Amino acid sequence: MLRVRSPLGPWTVGHTPSPESRPARFVPAQVPGAVQLDWARAEAWPPHWKGDNFKAYAWMEDVYWLYETRLPADPSPPGQSRVLVLVGVDYQFEVRINGQRRMAQEGMFTSVEIDVTHDADASLQILIWPIPKYPQAHRPKAQASRSCKPAVSYGWDWHPRLVPLGIWDDVFVETRPTTHLATAQLRSVLANDLSVAHVWLEATLSNPLPDAQLRLRLLSPSGDVALQRQFALGEAATQHELAAPLLWWPNGQGAPNLYTAEISLLNGAGHVLDERHSRVGFRRVRLVMNEGAWEEPSAFPKSRSHPPITLEINGRRVFAKGTNWVNPDIFPGTITAETYRPLIQMAQQAYFNILRTWGGAIVNKDAFFEQCDEAGLMVWQEFPLACNDYADDPHYLRVLDQESRAIIVRLRQHPSLCLWCGGNELFNVWSGMTDQHKALRLLNRNCFDLDPETPFLPTSPVMGMGHGDYRFRDENGREVYQMFAQANNTAYTEFGCPGPSDADYIASFTPANELFPPRKGTTWEHHHAFEAWSVAPESWLFPSLIEDYFGPCSSLEQMVAWGQLMQSEGYKCLYEEARRQKPFASMALNWCYNEPWPSAANNSLINWPARPKPAFYAVALSCRPVLASARLPQFSWIAEDLFKAELWLLNDSPHAVPAGRMTCCLRMDGHEVPLVTWEFPETAANENLAGPVVRALLPQGQAQTFDLVLRVEDHPDWDSTYTLCFRPGVQRGRVRVGAGNNA
Amino acid sequence: MLRVRSPLGPWTVGHTPSPESRPARFVPAQVPGAVQLDWARAEAWPPHWKGDNFKAYAWMEDVYWLYETRLPADPSPPGQSRVLVLVGVDYQFEVRINGQRRMAQEGMFTSVEIDVTHDADASLQILIWPIPKYPQAHRPKAQASRSCKPAVSYGWDWHPRLVPLGIWDDVFVETRPTTHLATAQLRSVLANDLSVAHVWLEATLSNPLPDAQLRLRLLSPSGDVALQRQFALGEAATQHELAAPLLWWPNGQGAPNLYTAEISLLNGAGHVLDERHSRVGFRRVRLVMNEGAWEEPSAFPKSRSHPPITLEINGRRVFAKGTNWVNPDIFPGTITAETYRPLIQMAQQAYFNILRTWGGAIVNKDAFFEQCDEAGLMVWQEFPLACNDYADDPHYLRVLDQESRAIIVRLRQHPSLCLWCGGNELFNVWSGMTDQHKALRLLNRNCFDLDPETPFLPTSPVMGMGHGDYRFRDENGREVYQMFAQANNTAYTEFGCPGPSDADYIASFTPANELFPPRKGTTWEHHHAFEAWSVAPESWLFPSLIEDYFGPCSSLEQMVAWGQLMQSEGYKCLYEEARRQKPFASMALNWCYNEPWPSAANNSLINWPARPKPAFYAVALSCRPVLASARLPQFSWIAEDLFKAELWLLNDSPHAVPAGRMTCCLRMDGHEVPLVTWEFPETAANENLAGPVVRALLPQGQAQTFDLVLRVEDHPDWDSTYTLCFRPGVQRGRVRVGAGNNA
Repeated sequence: MLRVRSPLGPWTVGHTPSPESRPARFVPAQVPGAVQLDWARAEAWPPHWKGDNFKAYAWMEDVYWLYETRLPADPSPPGQSRVLVLVGVDYQFEVRINGQRRMAQEGMFTSVEIDVTHDADASLQILIWPIPKYPQAHRPKAQASRSCKPAVSYGWDWHPRLVPLGIWDDVFVETRPTTHLATAQLRSVLANDLSVAHVWLEATLSNPLPDAQLRLRLLSPSGDVALQRQFALGEAATQHELAAPLLWWPNGQGAPNLYTAEISLLNGAGHVLDERHSRVGFRRVRLVMNEGAWEEPSAFPKSRSHPPITLEINGRRVFAKGTNWVNPDIFPGTITAETYRPLIQMAQQAYFNILRTWGGAIVNKDAFFEQCDEAGLMVWQEFPLACNDYADDPHYLRVLDQESRAIIVRLRQHPSLCLWCGGNELFNVWSGMTDQHKALRLLNRNCFDLDPETPFLPTSPVMGMGHGDYRFRDENGREVYQMFAQANNTAYTEFGCPGPSDADYIASFTPANELFPPRKGTTWEHHHAFEAWSVAPESWLFPSLIEDYFGPCSSLEQMVAWGQLMQSEGYKCLYEEARRQKPFASMALNWCYNEPWPSAANNSLINWPARPKPAFYAVALSCRPVLASARLPQFSWIAEDLFKAELWLLNDSPHAVPAGRMTCCLRMDGHEVPLVTWEFPETAANENLAGPVVRALLPQGQAQTFDLVLRVEDHPDWDSTYTLCFRPGVQRGRVRVGAGNNA
Repeated sequence: MLRVRSPLGPWTVGHTPSPESRPARFVPAQVPGAVQLDWARAEAWPPHWKGDNFKAYAWMEDVYWLYETRLPADPSPPGQSRVLVLVGVDYQFEVRINGQRRMAQEGMFTSVEIDVTHDADASLQILIWPIPKYPQAHRPKAQASRSCKPAVSYGWDWHPRLVPLGIWDDVFVETRPTTHLATAQLRSVLANDLSVAHVWLEATLSNPLPDAQLRLRLLSPSGDVALQRQFALGEAATQHELAAPLLWWPNGQGAPNLYTAEISLLNGAGHVLDERHSRVGFRRVRLVMNEGAWEEPSAFPKSRSHPPITLEINGRRVFAKGTNWVNPDIFPGTITAETYRPLIQMAQQAYFNILRTWGGAIVNKDAFFEQCDEAGLMVWQEFPLACNDYADDPHYLRVLDQESRAIIVRLRQHPSLCLWCGGNELFNVWSGMTDQHKALRLLNRNCFDLDPETPFLPTSPVMGMGHGDYRFRDENGREVYQMFAQANNTAYTEFGCPGPSDADYIASFTPANELFPPRKGTTWEHHHAFEAWSVAPESWLFPSLIEDYFGPCSSLEQMVAWGQLMQSEGYKCLYEEARRQKPFASMALNWCYNEPWPSAANNSLINWPARPKPAFYAVALSCRPVLASARLPQFSWIAEDLFKAELWLLNDSPHAVPAGRMTCCLRMDGHEVPLVTWEFPETAANENLAGPVVRALLPQGQAQTFDLVLRVEDHPDWDSTYTLCFRPGVQRGRVRVGAGNNA
C-alpha cells in the first residue's frame, strides 16, 4: 500500500453566533453528514420528513457551526507525508489546526488537501459559516443567486425550505510518499473513424523529482493489458495509440465498456513511489443538428436555424430517453453509493439512457458517476445555477470559476459525462439571464479550456427546446394529449405529469386526522399537494381535476388510484409522442425522476428514497426500444363517441425490426372488441413506422375506464395497453372539457 | 524622440513556383500594397476594375511571391535596439535576413517584430505563400474555410474573384532604447453609476529593468491633465480613479469625448526611457433585452426568450442606425486614412451611429477605428469567418487563436469597439456551423479573457434577428413595404434594396457597345448587374422589375433614374419601418454601405471609392433623429385607388420633441392636394408617435409618379417626401403585382 487512509473521529459539533466565540454545547457529529441532523439527533427530534417538522430547522441557517476532532496521534512515518483531505464541505468554511487558521474556502465542490505531516495529535476544527443569502433577494430562492450553493434547498415546488450545512463528503487523513502524484488523470480522444483512442496523461507531482518516470497501463474490460507505456514525466502529454478500443455505449445501444487505467510514479531507479487507478471509457459525443432543423427558417428576414440538440454517440444518432434527476436526499451528506444504486438500476431497467442532473441540485458524488459509467447512463451535468439571475459580481464569479474548474476536472474522465450545461432555465423571464452574462461566458470558457470535446449548452431550454407543461390538463382545457401533439420542439427536456403517492406512504408522514379529504394548510400542502407551483393552486394533487374525470372520490385510496392512473397515462402519452416526433425531436426527459423527501403528490416517478410509483412502470414500458404505440386524441370518452387512435410502431434501437402483425382491440367491461390488424413492414434501425388510424363507435359500457390493447404477434414484449376515462350513457349535455371531440 | 522610425525601400517583388527557387524577374513593389498591383503596374496592364480585366490576375493566386529590400546600412546607435516591424503581411509568409529564415507566420492580422540590431545593411526578403485553398471546397468561397483569410475576395455577389496577397500594412524599422515598452495599454472600466472611470495599465518591457517605473498621464479632451500617477512596473494593474470622466457617446447621443493616455517608462533615476501615446474613451456598452422580449414565449412547452440585441451605452438605450461596411478596396494594401475619411464622414452625416464590419472582410487598419472613435460611430467587429463551415481543425484553430488574440488586443482600447461577433451567418444552412463549433467557443473564450466588458455575439443573425431580403420585390410579389411590415424581428442587421449606379459611372468601366440595353454575359454581369445572387437571376439590376413598374426604358439614363428611385424609396421604407418597430426592434443596418470596386448595380449606398448614390441621401433623411414618416402599404398605385398611409413622428434622439403640427398632402402633376393636419402631442426622448391613417381616393393624373409630402410647422428639417409609382387611367384589368390592394 503506497497510500494509507485513516478515518478521523469521533467528531463533535456545536453552534455559535460568531466565528470567534466557542459553542456553548457540542453534540456528537456524523461525518459526512449535516449539522442539522446531528443537532436533531442530540435533541431526539422526530424525523424532519414528517408533517411540518422541517420548520424547526429554520434557525440553523443563520448561525456558525464548529466541528471538532483530533488528527492522528502517531507521528508520520519517516519519508512519508500526511495529508488531510476534505472532499466536500458545505458551504463556506475555515480549517483550524491547534487553533490556527490553515485555510478558508467558499464552495462545497472544490476538495481541499492540507499537509498535516507535522501536526500529529493536533486539534482539528472546521468552522462553517451561515448559509449564503443575497440580501437583495426578491424571493427565497434568489438568496442563492450570488453563490454556488444549490438553490433547491431554499425551497422549491417539491422541496421544503431546509438548507443543509456541514461536512457533506469524505474527510480523512492519508499517509503518502512525500513525493507522490498530486494529480494524475488519463485523457483521451477518439480518432475520427473511431478506430484508435489517442490517450495521454495529465499529471503533477507533490515535489520536484529528477528522473521521474510515469507508467501507464490500460486494462481492457476483460482485464487484459491493452496498453503499457513508460516515459519521463515531461512526456506525459505525448499521445499513445490504443488500437481498436472497445467503445462505451449508452444503455440500449451496446455495452458500456470500461477500461482500467493504472498510472504509476517511478523514480529513476524504477521504484514505484505512487499509483492511481481509475475506470475510463472511450466514446465520442457530439451535439448534431436535428434532422429538418437546417430547413428552417425559410422566409426573409431570415433568423438562425435551431441549435443542435441531437446526441451523436460514436457516430450514431441516439434518441435521448431519460429523466431529470434531483437530489436523492435533502441532506447530501447522507448520500452514499447505496443511495444511488437502486435509483440508477431502475433508470437502467426503464430503458433510460440519459439523466439530466439540473442546476438547482448538487453535483453528485463520485459513486453516482461510477454507477452511470457502468449502467450506460449518459449524464447531462449542469453547474449550480437555477432559476435565478446570477449577476456579474466579481466575488461570485471568482467562486464560480473555482467551483466549475474543480467540477470539470473531477468529472471529465467519466464516459457517462456527455453534456455540460450552464444551468436551469436561465434564459427565461423568471431567471432574467442572457447569453451576455459573465457567469455563462466563464463556464463556456472553462469547459472549453478543460474539456473541449464535450458539448456545452448555456442553459436548458435554448432555442427550439421546450420545458413544460407540468400538468395533465392546463387552465385552457388542453390535456397532455393535445398539448404535445401540437408542440414542435427539437427536444422535450422537462415535461411533467403529477400523481399522488400511495396512500400508505402518505400516511407514514401525515397525521391520521389530516389524511382525507386532502386539504390546503395541512401536511398535504407542506408535502406539495397544494399551492406548490404558483401557476396552479391545486398543484400537485389536482383533486378537482381527478374528480372532474372520475366523479367524487369517497376514499384516499380511490383518489390515489385515479390520480396515479392519470399520471401513468399522461406520461405514456408524453414519452411516446416525443418519440413519434423523432427525428425532428431528439430528447424526452420527464420532470422529475426521484425526490429528496416524501411528497404527497409530485411529478416524480419514484418516491423518496427509492420507491417507484405506478407511473415509473408505465414510463418504462413507453421507453422499451421497440413497442406498439397509439397516438390518442384525448383522455375522456363517452359511449357512442367516434373513437380514434393512430397506430405506430416505435423503434429507437440500433436494429431493424422485421415485418409483423399488430392487432388492436378495445377492452370494455372485460370484453375485447377487435378493431384492426396492421401488417407492418420491416422498419430500419432507429426509425418509427406510422400505421393506420383506428376508428370505431364506442359501445355502451358500465366501467369508468376502458382499455385500448395493442398486441404484436410473436412479440408480447412489444404489446401496449392504454387505459382511458369512460362515461357510460349518452349524457351529451354534460360539460366535458377536452372530451367528445368527434370532428 | 525616444523612438525613431525609418522607412524601408525601395522594394522589389517577383514570383516563383516554389519557395526555394529565386524569381526570374523582379519588378518595383509598392509597400504597403499588393503583389497583383505591382505586377500589373510593371506590365502596364489596364485597370483591374474595368470590364473583365480582373480575370487576368487568376494565376497570381497559386505562385510564391518574394519581396526584397535592404535593412538600413548604418549600424544601430549604441544602447539602442533596432526592430523590424511588420504591421500586416497577407497571408502566409516567411521573413529572411541575409538569406536566413528569421520567422514564419500564417495570418495577416498578427503584427510581427524582429530584432535587427545586429543586421545593418542586411538583405531582407519576405516570401509570400500562395493563397490558402481548402482542397475539399465545394464552392469557391469555401476555399477560405480553413484559414483566417477574408472570404470575400474568393468571390461574392458584389466582389469579383480577386484574392490579394502581399505586404498590406506598414513595414518599418524602429530604433528604440534597448529597454523599452514592448506593450503598453490603458485599460478601464466605468463604475456602475458612471461617476468614476477605474483605469489601469497592461505593460511589459523588452528587457527586465530593476526599479522600473511607469508614469500614466491622462489628458482630458480639452488638453488638461486629468490624472497623473507614477508607480512601479509591478503595480501596473493597480486601479486608479478618474472622477467624473467625460463620457464617449455615439453620434447623435452626445460628444464622442476622447482623452489622451501618455504612458512613460522611467528608470530608477527618473529618466524617461520610452513613451507611448494613445487616444482613449470611457463608455459602458451592454447588450440588454429588447423591450417585450421577456414576455415571449408564453405557451408550454416553453423555449427561451430572444437574446438581447439592444445596445445600451452609458446606461441609455440607443437605437442602432447604421450600415454594413465592406472593404473599401479589393486591395487592402492600398487603403490609407484618406480612403476611410470620406466614407466615415458620410456615415456620420447620415446620422448613422453604428458600422457592422462583417466577417467576410478584413479587420480594418488603425486609422479606421481612430476615425470611428472621433465620429462617434460604434463598430460591430466580426472575426474573419463568413458563410462557411470553419471546422474543428487543429491547425485552423491555432491560427484563429493567434489572429483573434491579436485583433482583440489591438482594438479593445477603442471606445468605438462596441460589439465582438464571431462572423457572418454562421448558423444558417449555407454555412452549417453551430454553437458547438470550437472556432466560436474559442472566440467567445478569447473575447471573455481579453475584453470581458464588451458584448459578444457568436454570429449574426442569432435568434430573433433577421437578415434579408435584398430585393425591392421578391418572387412572391411581396415588396419591401409588405415584407417588413409583417416582419417581427428584434434587429434588422442586414437588409438590402438594390439600385444601379449612375450612367456616367457605369460608362467609366463598361465598353460603349455594351452599355445599353444591359445584357447578361457582358461587363454588366461581371460588375454584378446579373446573376450576382443565386436566388435571383436579375440581381442586382432587376431591369424587368423596373420596367414592370415604369414601362419599357428607352435609355440607360431612364433605367438608372427609375432604378435609383426604387432603391431610394425602398431603403426609406426599410429604415423607417425598423424605427417604427422600436422598441421591440433595436437595430436597422442595411446591406451594404460601400463597395470595393465599381459595381453596375448593387445594394450599396456609395459607389467605389466614395461616390454616394441617390439612395445615400434618401437614407440619411430617414435616419434623421426626428422626422415625419409615413408607413405605406405598397409602391404602385392607380388613379381611383383608395390611397392609405399611416402618419408617424419618429424620434430616436435623447430629447423630447414638443407638440406640433404635421400636414400631409399629395402632389400630383405639380399640384398639391392637402389631406390631413395632425396636431401631434409632445413625445418623450427616444419615443415614436403613431398618428392618423390618411385615406383618400387618388385623382386622375398624367405623371408616372406622385409624391406624398409631410411637413412639420416650424420644422422644415423634419419634413419628408415619398415618391410612389403611379399609373394614370383606370386600367383595372391590367396585371399589377403588389398594387391596387384596396382591402
